[in-house]
Amino acid sequence: MPIVQIEMFEGRTLEQKREMVKEVTQALVRTVKCPPEAVTIVIREMNKEDFAEVGLLYCDK
Amino acid sequence: MPIVQIEMFEGRTLEQKREMVKEVTQALVRTVKCPPEAVTIVIREMNKEDFAEVGLLYCDK
Amino acid sequence: MPIVQIEMFEGRTLEQKREMVKEVTQALVRTVKCPPEAVTIVIREMNKEDFAEVGLLYCDK
Amino acid sequence: MPIVQIEMFEGRTLEQKREMVKEVTQALVRTVKCPPEAVTIVIREMNKEDFAEVGLLYCDK
Amino acid sequence: MPIVQIEMFEGRTLEQKREMVKEVTQALVRTVKCPPEAVTIVIREMNKEDFAEVGLLYCDK
Amino acid sequence: MPIVQIEMFEGRTLEQKREMVKEVTQALVRTVKCPPEAVTIVIREMNKEDFAEVGLLYCDK
Repeated sequence: MPIVQIEMFEGRTLEQKREMVKEVTQALVRTVKCPPEAVTIVIREMNKEDFAEVGLLYCDK
Repeated sequence: MPIVQIEMFEGRTLEQKREMVKEVTQALVRTVKCPPEAVTIVIREMNKEDFAEVGLLYCDK
Repeated sequence: MPIVQIEMFEGRTLEQKREMVKEVTQALVRTVKCPPEAVTIVIREMNKEDFAEVGLLYCDK
Repeated sequence: MPIVQIEMFEGRTLEQKREMVKEVTQALVRTVKCPPEAVTIVIREMNKEDFAEVGLLYCDK
Repeated sequence: MPIVQIEMFEGRTLEQKREMVKEVTQALVRTVKCPPEAVTIVIREMNKEDFAEVGLLYCDK
Repeated sequence: MPIVQIEMFEGRTLEQKREMVKEVTQALVRTVKCPPEAVTIVIREMNKEDFAEVGLLYCDK
């Protein structure tokens, strides 16, 4: 704990994911004072057919 | 808010997803009195190997 | 299936939840052609300290 | 209810999933005294680029 | 990994939860061949106003 | 998008949550190059009876 889940559109590079999990972990360590070993992050990628706002699929915007 | 997640079997057409997010958004606007801009919907598709009821995978039914 | 999860701020009445699950279920039946028996809905209520946009808690807006 | 979600790395065989949902369902029936018909299980598979501990992607370990 | 989430109605005793996490962990170790240290379980309790099937809240059944 | 969910033990102060959502949002903006307006964060607090590792509830450790 904390367990973090990040849902985002597919298309980020491995290098971007690598930086993202490093920096999000550091942000949690600094602010909620947990050890870095306690932070687990799960990434879920999604395509633009599977996300909607205001009743509209993102691929139709 | 609301944030809605819909898990369903893969195989729906883009047109079905399009109608689904439109009608689910309208249902929320009517019943919980939120503006349509507040509704976010995430769709997660799943295959029949990854869902079980009564201890049995759906693909084995 | 579908399994629907709806996260929203606390404070809706029982009657609003009752209407919401009825209408969301009907929206799914109409659009993805599943039987009403297949629709499961889980509601998760949240307070304004536990939701953030643009890096700002909702209770601070 | 209960609704169980199991996130794990991809690569398990269909036979392993089949045994897993059978045994997890039995464990719930024995311990929380629900009927087997009440147990729904959703499996989510993930690759090693999408999971991190201690700020490090699993694929980089 | 695996990360398991179990959503169920509130009202189970601490002893039932204790047995549940022990037996679910053992079921995963036996079937997907992971070490027990790899299994994380999160329990989410819910009341009968926040769960619906067939368009009907459980508290109204 | 991204939509971030953070599950952690209850007991953090409002000020800690405030700093956490600010810094996690900045971490995402820097690393995946999204605008801050695109980041939504949901916090879920949990008690020590509802989290288990190695088959053991956290409250029993």
